[in-house]
Amino acid sequence: MAQLKQDRALYTRAKIIRAAAEVFDDLGFASASLSKIVNRAGVTIGAVYFHFTSKEELARAVMAEQVTDMTFPAGEEGLQLVIDITLDVARQLQHNTLLRAGIRLAVEQGAFGLEDDAAYSLWTELLRRQLAVARERGELLDRVDEREFAQLLVGAYTGTQLVSQITAGHDDLTERIATLWYYFLPGVAVPEVIPRLRLEPATSDTESF
Amino acid sequence: MAQLKQDRALYTRAKIIRAAAEVFDDLGFASASLSKIVNRAGVTIGAVYFHFTSKEELARAVMAEQVTDMTFPAGEEGLQLVIDITLDVARQLQHNTLLRAGIRLAVEQGAFGLEDDAAYSLWTELLRRQLAVARERGELLDRVDEREFAQLLVGAYTGTQLVSQITAGHDDLTERIATLWYYFLPGVAVPEVIPRLRLEPATSDTESF
Repeated sequence: MAQLKQDRALYTRAKIIRAAAEVFDDLGFASASLSKIVNRAGVTIGAVYFHFTSKEELARAVMAEQVTDMTFPAGEEGLQLVIDITLDVARQLQHNTLLRAGIRLAVEQGAFGLEDDAAYSLWTELLRRQLAVARERGELLDRVDEREFAQLLVGAYTGTQLVSQITAGHDDLTERIATLWYYFLPGVAVPEVIPRLRLEPATSDTESF
Repeated sequence: MAQLKQDRALYTRAKIIRAAAEVFDDLGFASASLSKIVNRAGVTIGAVYFHFTSKEELARAVMAEQVTDMTFPAGEEGLQLVIDITLDVARQLQHNTLLRAGIRLAVEQGAFGLEDDAAYSLWTELLRRQLAVARERGELLDRVDEREFAQLLVGAYTGTQLVSQITAGHDDLTERIATLWYYFLPGVAVPEVIPRLRLEPATSDTESF
């Protein structure tokens, strides 16, 4: 029984986070409210307050769980998978609300007084692990520090998607990410590896995280 | 007399924009108000409404005029000056309120319903012109498209400063920008040029824009 109660609580929490992401995505942080999120989630205000004390705390949760609904590209690990993940995020931003709202809140959080680096740490660690595989496979130049480049890539990616969002509603994001790699690769990848790398989105064959 | 009136109006407008930058920088967009900006500027509310109809319009003006108080590094034009400008912005963000508020508003504008790409276009054009000089001087690889790389650099820079702001209050920004160039240069610059480029901030010898 205790287990069932806990499962229900987790289910309700996840439902609230998804509803919050939808409301933040539709209205932006400033115009979103707890009551709108309660209505969207179809839960009681008491259920929301059981899990979250404020709109800010909900925003933190959406930022921290932005990859929960993501699928990750299948295929060989290493540098190609790093590239595929960055291209695939560009594609998934079109229809994955939790991802889109999470990234947008992480970028705009300063406007509502937050300074939460959890989302940036999450992406840095995810990319660093895959760069470590690329290192083992001999795909990276000696000059590359995997942690440093992962951090840099997260920052460069975040800004590239922001400019693409403001100037083109994300329509040209895939192209801009391919361009980012075009300029990064000579400073990152072993020369013989570069011609083998694909800078177009992978096939739709994906697997869950 | 007409000229004098016009000068006074321009002076008042500039004073209001600087006051707005200070208030946005102190309080963030959400907590800033026209009345606080009026008090800070030491002008009448009528003077503000003569120039600007809303807080949003003031935010647009701060974004568009973020480089007004900037000094630009002196020295030889070309790729070194592009690098020096990016390092110098990192330094000036510490004490130049108009620059800091302008960049922050450009990043966070989505939170208050704006989608204004003027600030991004301004920086792209400024860097593209200097990259064109680098091209004339034979410093760029054939593979580089100056406009494309200028656009990319503005996005990558914006995200890098955002992550530095959130994780370190901009303290490590100069280092992160040097790292950005470390990874970009092999894909951008002619090999013989790279050893001659300085990735540390220039001397304090600067000139006005």
